[in-house]
Amino acid sequence: MTERTAIEDLETPVLVVDLDAVGRNIAAMQGYCDEHGFAFRPHIKTHKIPAIAHLQLSAGAVGVTCQKLGEAEVMAAAGVRDILVTFPLVGRAKAERLAALSRTVRISVAADSPRVARDLSDVLSRDGLSVGFLVDCDTALGRTGVQSPKQAADLAVLVDSLPGLRFAGLMTYPTEPESGPWLGAAREMIEALGLQVGRVSGGGTPTAFRTHEIGEVTEIRAGTYVYGDVNCIDDRTVSPEDCAIGIRSMVVSRPTRDRAILDAGSKALSSDPPAYGRDGYGLITKYPDAKIYALDEEHGYVEIRAGLEGLEVGEVVTIIPNHACTAVNMHDETVAHRRGEIVAVWPVAARGKIK
Amino acid sequence: MTERTAIEDLETPVLVVDLDAVGRNIAAMQGYCDEHGFAFRPHIKTHKIPAIAHLQLSAGAVGVTCQKLGEAEVMAAAGVRDILVTFPLVGRAKAERLAALSRTVRISVAADSPRVARDLSDVLSRDGLSVGFLVDCDTALGRTGVQSPKQAADLAVLVDSLPGLRFAGLMTYPTEPESGPWLGAAREMIEALGLQVGRVSGGGTPTAFRTHEIGEVTEIRAGTYVYGDVNCIDDRTVSPEDCAIGIRSMVVSRPTRDRAILDAGSKALSSDPPAYGRDGYGLITKYPDAKIYALDEEHGYVEIRAGLEGLEVGEVVTIIPNHACTAVNMHDETVAHRRGEIVAVWPVAARGKIK
Repeated sequence: MTERTAIEDLETPVLVVDLDAVGRNIAAMQGYCDEHGFAFRPHIKTHKIPAIAHLQLSAGAVGVTCQKLGEAEVMAAAGVRDILVTFPLVGRAKAERLAALSRTVRISVAADSPRVARDLSDVLSRDGLSVGFLVDCDTALGRTGVQSPKQAADLAVLVDSLPGLRFAGLMTYPTEPESGPWLGAAREMIEALGLQVGRVSGGGTPTAFRTHEIGEVTEIRAGTYVYGDVNCIDDRTVSPEDCAIGIRSMVVSRPTRDRAILDAGSKALSSDPPAYGRDGYGLITKYPDAKIYALDEEHGYVEIRAGLEGLEVGEVVTIIPNHACTAVNMHDETVAHRRGEIVAVWPVAARGKIK
Repeated sequence: MTERTAIEDLETPVLVVDLDAVGRNIAAMQGYCDEHGFAFRPHIKTHKIPAIAHLQLSAGAVGVTCQKLGEAEVMAAAGVRDILVTFPLVGRAKAERLAALSRTVRISVAADSPRVARDLSDVLSRDGLSVGFLVDCDTALGRTGVQSPKQAADLAVLVDSLPGLRFAGLMTYPTEPESGPWLGAAREMIEALGLQVGRVSGGGTPTAFRTHEIGEVTEIRAGTYVYGDVNCIDDRTVSPEDCAIGIRSMVVSRPTRDRAILDAGSKALSSDPPAYGRDGYGLITKYPDAKIYALDEEHGYVEIRAGLEGLEVGEVVTIIPNHACTAVNMHDETVAHRRGEIVAVWPVAARGKIK
């Protein structure tokens, strides 16, 4: 028996990632940031793998972004030295874990309420620790974040007064055209109060390459750009050729001429629908016209139009998922390859870290 | 410090299961099957935990159902002795794993094509092994399965002729009113050819308690009944009081009076929408009128109507998910409790077993 080296030989369903495309995507985003003088802080929620975070850091990233503390713990244990946690850390248990992390890595946080700032301050100052705090600003989305530049300034002043916290700047997600004026107004109010706005962190792959037109932002956070997905193809941030991610899946049933069933369902692709009006649950690279019209947990339903040859039982296809982040989170392992030759099998170390 | 014993003390988000309700649900379904003389073969895809499978077996189940071979391997390793794998096993690697499993447990499979039957036969007969094979019949859903009773009979005859396979009966999912006549016609054709239809296996929680009205089915497979979920509440198979599953989640932001943000998003609840016309991504038990109107991966968006008190930052709520199976698959651990007291923390051993 020869050693297994080609992705064609892998059992399905399986998540594979083309490292050549990953390299091109990292170079493109870092190049943009370097050209315009932005700090780049990739979000690890797309890949969830320390080895890829280190590729991003080697290319010039200033640190990484994590959503949950559990992801930050994985990255810190793997040698990442500078981490921003953008999800509000509420409650004593989270504060204690943040304190522990802050002893070993440079960590900063973002939140939108005095309550959270005070609770973090209590625990951090007790131990003589200090963490950078960015004020989370709701400039466009309507999710978390203070609702006005005035509220941002109020929270900045409070944070500046609290032991254990350093006011480090502003954070928003996503960066939209209206984010620029909003953040500018907040920055001016805060500076007028005598505080320095260390950094202004904006996020999201869809608008990342337009950040220089939006203004105010000094640091870019983006995650999906590294793999691409159907949504990135549709919003033209990653070309189909640069989509690094694929779920290899086998046709396991062909009950009728117009229907094939794949072994990749929502447990392999996630049930996220496409973001931009397209129909279907992922793109079959070899048969772009064969629509994955429904998913059960283990089954993908494919509509076969008249005239399409292929997709018989046993055929393996590659599916680009609608949303890379949620698809990756379904997999325990990622198989990295170059031109189909396997170069690494990485545990998805930060998968499922919801705490 | 006292030992942690109450679910109130757990960090969020976390999956909890009320073992008293689990016991009631197991008793109700097994009682129904016993009353009507059905064999019961629970689907483990809902809980994915050997300890709960053993509760079901102790109550009288004849074995378990698994969707993927990886789930069957987990259950076999945990001492489950009789397993039906309902997902078609295609390709050499799957056949070899099936052969290995069949040496240690009583295992049966279901599929819908001559190709799959022949490939399994090749590997099993080579080793002198034998596995029960049920013909997968598409009686209602339009997913996998042979398309007519005649096709079922043809495949039964082929299976009966193949070494390494025993024709064991018919399988369908879900059991619908039209499934009875379909399966009856197939059974009669097969019996007329001189073969015995050992068992007729029907599936699905929504119609399980009506199986005696549908006819033909001799074995019931159901999974979701054991935990319940929003869909079970809506189709009245499990009452709200008997819903055993909850995702405990904390309010982490209250940016406006009409919006709260929870720390449970699609990575804790799954992004499955409700099945029966209801709106929203899960039911907050304490605030049934507060709608979870959107999910991001880590964020749940809650609409707060005028007059609703509560859901301030730091409050922890319990969410019944729309779909128990997909929600469970997002969690590495399940905390089992009785009246809020923790009695076990179980790894979700069969989580993510997509192969």
